[in-house]
Amino acid sequence: MVKIAIDMMGGDEAPGIVIEAIKKAINDFPDLEILLYGDEKQYNYQHERVIFHHTDEVITMDDEPVRSIKKKKNASMVLMANAVKEGTAEACVSAGNTGALMSSGLFIVGRMKGIERPALVATFPTVTGKGFVFLDIGANSDAKPEHLVQYAKMGEIYAKQIRSIEKPSLALLNIGTEESKGNALTKKTYELLKEEKFDNFIGNIEAKSLLLDTCDVVVSDGYNGNMVLKTIEGTATGIFKMLKEAMTASPKNKLAALTLKKDLKQINNKMDSAEYGGSVLLGLNGVVVKAHGSSNERAFYNAIKQAKLAADTKLVDKMKKAVGEINE
Amino acid sequence: MVKIAIDMMGGDEAPGIVIEAIKKAINDFPDLEILLYGDEKQYNYQHERVIFHHTDEVITMDDEPVRSIKKKKNASMVLMANAVKEGTAEACVSAGNTGALMSSGLFIVGRMKGIERPALVATFPTVTGKGFVFLDIGANSDAKPEHLVQYAKMGEIYAKQIRSIEKPSLALLNIGTEESKGNALTKKTYELLKEEKFDNFIGNIEAKSLLLDTCDVVVSDGYNGNMVLKTIEGTATGIFKMLKEAMTASPKNKLAALTLKKDLKQINNKMDSAEYGGSVLLGLNGVVVKAHGSSNERAFYNAIKQAKLAADTKLVDKMKKAVGEINE
Repeated sequence: MVKIAIDMMGGDEAPGIVIEAIKKAINDFPDLEILLYGDEKQYNYQHERVIFHHTDEVITMDDEPVRSIKKKKNASMVLMANAVKEGTAEACVSAGNTGALMSSGLFIVGRMKGIERPALVATFPTVTGKGFVFLDIGANSDAKPEHLVQYAKMGEIYAKQIRSIEKPSLALLNIGTEESKGNALTKKTYELLKEEKFDNFIGNIEAKSLLLDTCDVVVSDGYNGNMVLKTIEGTATGIFKMLKEAMTASPKNKLAALTLKKDLKQINNKMDSAEYGGSVLLGLNGVVVKAHGSSNERAFYNAIKQAKLAADTKLVDKMKKAVGEINE
Repeated sequence: MVKIAIDMMGGDEAPGIVIEAIKKAINDFPDLEILLYGDEKQYNYQHERVIFHHTDEVITMDDEPVRSIKKKKNASMVLMANAVKEGTAEACVSAGNTGALMSSGLFIVGRMKGIERPALVATFPTVTGKGFVFLDIGANSDAKPEHLVQYAKMGEIYAKQIRSIEKPSLALLNIGTEESKGNALTKKTYELLKEEKFDNFIGNIEAKSLLLDTCDVVVSDGYNGNMVLKTIEGTATGIFKMLKEAMTASPKNKLAALTLKKDLKQINNKMDSAEYGGSVLLGLNGVVVKAHGSSNERAFYNAIKQAKLAADTKLVDKMKKAVGEINE
């Protein structure tokens, strides 16, 4: 049995989509047990593998991260993180306040030895559907070169364990492919990465190559990573908006669009972050998965699946071992 | 008569596309005169409004920027910049080595009083086709908050003069819309921007809103601006690649695609940087336009058009006046 703790109250569409996602996950995975934290008045599902814990307290999107997790000791998110800390659950998932979830990870679940700053990692879509591992996508806005080296180590292990890539290629996100390109942060990081032992460090990667299956793991500081993530999202939204307009512009176009509907839907799905589950906060003593605040049922379901995969593959243990080995 | 100096030897497809673009521009604008610098053996066009200057020397893509413009005194790019410095030409255009062109701008054309760092500005596509002014898209990788404030001033003037927007809305590119969001650079910049007098400073803008006609001028440091530019480019390329595959996947799809061809082409054109000309290096004592290294004929033609518009509207004079006024 794999035990996952879930915050029922986090996210724009909670608790509705959270409960629906849980129903589907419970149905799909016979070895899944869920510890669920939330308001009993909004909970209307019963299953022997869902253990419900009532709480009135909730961390809202406006709550100040660090203060709220210290003051709201019974918030659904805090109780969920406690379950991981105490070993009652092997992983946890929330679509709530990102800052508060990060603080829960840092101050409740705790930092892994050898890692100064945890990083948010996600698998990103590419044209072929293969995808790439991208970190940090927003945990730390002001990172140092040393932090990026740690992200690279964690990303390599993540690609090996979660994505089963034997010798993942690793690249540094930069504004040019040449070694001399970049800002002070990326220039120094490049130097440090060269000195470390990675399976396959291939140098810098430009943002324009990200979707073209150029490499398996891409490392960036959290500010730029988050910026690139939102740019991809916004560009895809903009283009699909224009496509939709074109395809409904005339009866003839509408008819043609009908033929292409299935294929276009597939492309849209490929670019849809909901398909790739949540992002994982790496560098902690447990698995903390952040589902998008605007998660729908499918997105939250995929986040649960991702948490389960991390638990199944013993990601944290393997990362501890590898980080320990690397640091020795 | 408007005189534009052009580097015939810069860019991946030079001099072929440069000469073709010039033919079209000469034909379209009866008040345009071109001072052209390049190798006579590769020049096969004659027109009374094109004054050709032969030179054997060329700055290549591998040349070290500052050293090359100092050593290669007869390089086509250097001669072109000299023409602007000496007042023989009112503007100049090159698709050559970006770093060398920046150095030519700084050390030959010269910096405008009151501006510490020039910035590269371009007009970016949006869903409606309205577009927005975006700077710095790559002139300086490590910028300070004070530099970003200067970019904002220049961007506002550029939008007024070149794009005829009376009271342009101005936003700071950031990873969240709230004032407290961002890294050390954007947080400090936000504070400084609030203290200045702009026509319409609307706060932070997220990268996901860029293509949705949210504002007229977007300010960023050159590293992030360049990153976002390349992300938009790469995402659009990736999506159009998937679309093309879908549309040729079956005879039925091919037929449907035929109906939509014209509309899809229009969307692709909207996202194509070639339609938006080059980028202008703002903050100099003259107009320096950088055409993309991989410019085709249309892109280079649009860059010439842009240089002419900057000359026609006396952009540099107006910017000097405005920066002077602001600094007083």
